[in-house]
Amino acid sequence: MPPRVSVIGAAGFGGALAARLLYGHPSFELVAVTARSDVGRRLDDLYPHHRVPLVLEELDLDRHADVDAAVVAYPHGAAAPVVSALIEREVRVVDLSADFRLRDVAVYGEWYREHLAPELIGDAVYGLPEIYRHALAGADLVANPGCYPTATLLALAPLARAGVIDDVVIDAKSGVSGAGRAATEKTHFVTVDENVSAYGVPRHRHTPEIEQELAALGADLRVTFTPHLVPLDQGELVSCYVTVTREVDSGELEALYRDAYEAEPFVELADRPPGVRDVRETNFCRISLHRDERTGRVIVFGVIDNLWKGAASQAVQNLNLMFRLPEGEGIS
Amino acid sequence: MPPRVSVIGAAGFGGALAARLLYGHPSFELVAVTARSDVGRRLDDLYPHHRVPLVLEELDLDRHADVDAAVVAYPHGAAAPVVSALIEREVRVVDLSADFRLRDVAVYGEWYREHLAPELIGDAVYGLPEIYRHALAGADLVANPGCYPTATLLALAPLARAGVIDDVVIDAKSGVSGAGRAATEKTHFVTVDENVSAYGVPRHRHTPEIEQELAALGADLRVTFTPHLVPLDQGELVSCYVTVTREVDSGELEALYRDAYEAEPFVELADRPPGVRDVRETNFCRISLHRDERTGRVIVFGVIDNLWKGAASQAVQNLNLMFRLPEGEGIS
Amino acid sequence: MPPRVSVIGAAGFGGALAARLLYGHPSFELVAVTARSDVGRRLDDLYPHHRVPLVLEELDLDRHADVDAAVVAYPHGAAAPVVSALIEREVRVVDLSADFRLRDVAVYGEWYREHLAPELIGDAVYGLPEIYRHALAGADLVANPGCYPTATLLALAPLARAGVIDDVVIDAKSGVSGAGRAATEKTHFVTVDENVSAYGVPRHRHTPEIEQELAALGADLRVTFTPHLVPLDQGELVSCYVTVTREVDSGELEALYRDAYEAEPFVELADRPPGVRDVRETNFCRISLHRDERTGRVIVFGVIDNLWKGAASQAVQNLNLMFRLPEGEGIS
Amino acid sequence: MPPRVSVIGAAGFGGALAARLLYGHPSFELVAVTARSDVGRRLDDLYPHHRVPLVLEELDLDRHADVDAAVVAYPHGAAAPVVSALIEREVRVVDLSADFRLRDVAVYGEWYREHLAPELIGDAVYGLPEIYRHALAGADLVANPGCYPTATLLALAPLARAGVIDDVVIDAKSGVSGAGRAATEKTHFVTVDENVSAYGVPRHRHTPEIEQELAALGADLRVTFTPHLVPLDQGELVSCYVTVTREVDSGELEALYRDAYEAEPFVELADRPPGVRDVRETNFCRISLHRDERTGRVIVFGVIDNLWKGAASQAVQNLNLMFRLPEGEGIS
Repeated sequence: MPPRVSVIGAAGFGGALAARLLYGHPSFELVAVTARSDVGRRLDDLYPHHRVPLVLEELDLDRHADVDAAVVAYPHGAAAPVVSALIEREVRVVDLSADFRLRDVAVYGEWYREHLAPELIGDAVYGLPEIYRHALAGADLVANPGCYPTATLLALAPLARAGVIDDVVIDAKSGVSGAGRAATEKTHFVTVDENVSAYGVPRHRHTPEIEQELAALGADLRVTFTPHLVPLDQGELVSCYVTVTREVDSGELEALYRDAYEAEPFVELADRPPGVRDVRETNFCRISLHRDERTGRVIVFGVIDNLWKGAASQAVQNLNLMFRLPEGEGIS
Repeated sequence: MPPRVSVIGAAGFGGALAARLLYGHPSFELVAVTARSDVGRRLDDLYPHHRVPLVLEELDLDRHADVDAAVVAYPHGAAAPVVSALIEREVRVVDLSADFRLRDVAVYGEWYREHLAPELIGDAVYGLPEIYRHALAGADLVANPGCYPTATLLALAPLARAGVIDDVVIDAKSGVSGAGRAATEKTHFVTVDENVSAYGVPRHRHTPEIEQELAALGADLRVTFTPHLVPLDQGELVSCYVTVTREVDSGELEALYRDAYEAEPFVELADRPPGVRDVRETNFCRISLHRDERTGRVIVFGVIDNLWKGAASQAVQNLNLMFRLPEGEGIS
Repeated sequence: MPPRVSVIGAAGFGGALAARLLYGHPSFELVAVTARSDVGRRLDDLYPHHRVPLVLEELDLDRHADVDAAVVAYPHGAAAPVVSALIEREVRVVDLSADFRLRDVAVYGEWYREHLAPELIGDAVYGLPEIYRHALAGADLVANPGCYPTATLLALAPLARAGVIDDVVIDAKSGVSGAGRAATEKTHFVTVDENVSAYGVPRHRHTPEIEQELAALGADLRVTFTPHLVPLDQGELVSCYVTVTREVDSGELEALYRDAYEAEPFVELADRPPGVRDVRETNFCRISLHRDERTGRVIVFGVIDNLWKGAASQAVQNLNLMFRLPEGEGIS
Repeated sequence: MPPRVSVIGAAGFGGALAARLLYGHPSFELVAVTARSDVGRRLDDLYPHHRVPLVLEELDLDRHADVDAAVVAYPHGAAAPVVSALIEREVRVVDLSADFRLRDVAVYGEWYREHLAPELIGDAVYGLPEIYRHALAGADLVANPGCYPTATLLALAPLARAGVIDDVVIDAKSGVSGAGRAATEKTHFVTVDENVSAYGVPRHRHTPEIEQELAALGADLRVTFTPHLVPLDQGELVSCYVTVTREVDSGELEALYRDAYEAEPFVELADRPPGVRDVRETNFCRISLHRDERTGRVIVFGVIDNLWKGAASQAVQNLNLMFRLPEGEGIS
């Protein structure tokens, strides 16, 4: 019998995609999808292209916690209580929100709000398989990384581990699906079309998450992180401008990344700056490295699909690890 | 002293553009902009690219009717009472809504709702200058045409007048600004981007307006009209497939259109199918004619900018006529 | 041993996608990809997102015809001689060009050019599985349909078979990938972006293909077919306006389509007008039906992905049938 | 009699727009447009939306140098000989190429090629009116700035003059018109659509131009400059991440920019990060300032329309200054 899973919060972009991936997954059985809006509507009516013929239900823990695992796709703050209730019922959880990503509850409080389930923070594993693969195997609670941290950390991890990052500017460009399904002035077609602008300046909430994980890798510093909205649907590019602590020549640079990623199934190294189209609708992160001889800076570009590797397919990758299934099952 | 004008309902796309055009108009003085939302916000904060440094005010007829003319940009149904109040105070009005376009109050009732100022219908002039120029000169109440009727009527008028239209299929494609400023699932970037689909099938409200005006030109028939949403901001293309009552050869076809439009300042005839980019941010309508030898059908394409010739700049063109100013002033 | 296949002409959009689908296909072995340009370049360098690690080779029939089957993706006219050479070497072929779609060589001559392998026309099966499934099983030469005919014929087949089509206007909207990989003024981003216009007016080459197949289904008439270019990548919508020979009520209409398609794995019936996003990167055709009570017309919308169901995935669907494999293998 | 001008190289995007602006200019008479391609074609056939009814001619200095001034829009390298010939005939020139922007011929040689008219370099005035207004008044040869330098220098000039720039990372995002009219794989719609990627890494040719002018303002340093291509037509955003030599508080920051720009007719200061839509089809540069308290960095965003302020309308602004006309004439 395959493990039974539910998606809690499947009306949004990330949850709906997780439902699609799990519905087609050979080793999981998707038994329910719940939502806080659009209850009673079929998911394939809301998202025809996902072709999931299930009806969105109101969350009822008595029924929906009768599963082996759940993907929770609630907004920050709303997720913690639900995750807590699920864990209590011995449901294993991948949480797409930020609620269990930050290990320091005070930092969470400063950037988000009061934490509603602080006792669980210590149990959560940060769900970036390329870094925490061993801890994810068999884990019960996984905090799925933010989309920007996913791309940024994969782009910078080899440099962070090598201890050569003195300072870094991260300029990110994201498609509109990253802003979520809510219809607002910001997501109106006419606002976005033929436009590009920065947002969340100068304090975007993914900053402390990036800093926490860079520090864990050996680079304890304050980063400058600025996201921009670009007129496309899915896809995210991070351009990382690294001031190095010592000269890093091209040979060393390439060796650092080759060693880190040549065995990774979902990280690709490219000769040229990658485009977000290269990874659209995939779980891949594609990275290129450049050294500016004139300034000594190292420039690293990383692209992901924000809804896939930046959210839903990475959640499935984590579920695979939690259940000791082949890591790429259902997402390749 | 230039005539003083106000824009009633300047928070939406059409009203805001009318405000911009009037603010820069050499012969009108824009004295106020009102809105039902965003009151207190500066228009150049809401629409930086229009650069109109006026504050949106709540409508106060005692103050805002103290003008020579007003452009009213309210939704259908909401416009009639305001227009009525303005006319009562001897303010001349260009109304962007559908409220005074249909001459038969029963038809209005069937396609929209109960009419709230039926006594004014008979006084309104349909604001398509290329057809009603003489009646518009000096008019007090002008019903600005819908965007689809504007393009369609200009594309078909010469054929209608010649009495050769037996049947017509009108397939229209519009940018998203035509759906208005309201943020909805329909106008969300992710819904529209990389997409194209029909809407309002099979009964879009512009149908009776098109039929009324075609009949007035001599073509009394029921049309098939289907609009589609395409992933762009401003612009609208109508593709008109005309079954003719008798053979119309290329020479006659060209003569009909040349005679109708060669003296028109805002209608252009093109050799090739026009694109909506050709008329973006202009008051032009651009038209091309084609004859399908195999079927005998006549195909006419017409493009306009739905916010300009399809709404705001045509409103200013009408205002110019009402005040007997040069027709293209402020919109060329 | 799985059948061995090659893709002849894999540098273009259609051939490259066919290569990707066959590279990942569980029952075929892709042994070579050839091209007339970019020889020596790896396909995953040219199309990173397809992830096919093969090198484009110059065509050498001695080597590349040593396969069980080939997909030929050459331009019209260039395909016939290569297909002829392959068939002579007993290679089974799916041809993506128009060269073997028209059964009447004179019609081909009128719309395209002199035919270079007319002796093979009689052997070719028209590769629309929903209509010619039985003939495709075991076939040696399949003419893959054009993208517009694919969508149009699926949208109209039930009406054609019922004998109720008196006249039809087909207004099509296609993404830019349909124009191919050649960089021209027409495919330049700045030409297409924020634009929409008709092209191929009034004689697009897909017209006789549509007419031939409608006639075979029972509707012998001349159609009006007009394609438009819309600012998106992949996807195609056909809006079909059918004048019927007799009244067809909603019940009959729905029954006709349900009977035709309820068992079809790749045709979906929708309640609302479908969008091209609904079928992006799939082999599905999605159709909706509407009846205009006012005019009696029947309106049918059909959407496909022009590179998938309109070209490469339909080619694989045909290959599956030719080799009596499950029809959806490798494309679901 | 108004000064007579010609545009040399009007088939490209920048030259064509310059022709449009000069054709409609109240104080210049556009007498000829020349091109190296499309000779004999009318400009309003090539660019319908510009509505310039002149025929593109082959350059003939005997005729086309019989003017008071010329805008030269040739590629780098090709411009210098033509500019030289025009200057010799006492035609005043605004050159849109890079040929006369760099004051050090060796730097030009390193980043471009051998200079073909080095004797003129010393006579050229760098055409950024906000910085060189006095030198431009009455000048005979103006080197119109590159689009990226225009936005970057306006964004950074107040900080450079204040001597507080220690280091700067400039991450730029540009629409596709910046890549020019040539149809290439890079400008194909399918390449750009739903994509974003860096290019010219790590040595884009605008780098030395930015460094030269920053040095002239007081900031002698090596910059990191990386442009990205985003899926839109016209518009350019530069995100400048400045490491400061000393703490600069918000009050000082705002004062620096207010003092620099409050009297500038074409520079706007914004409270929020500007979008490129804010300045589309205008000569404006719009700037916002931000201070990251956590890192001490100053972040400055600047947006322009790359074809307007980044090329053609700035060329007209310069022509106005050269002929001592009102600076905004014909471009407001």
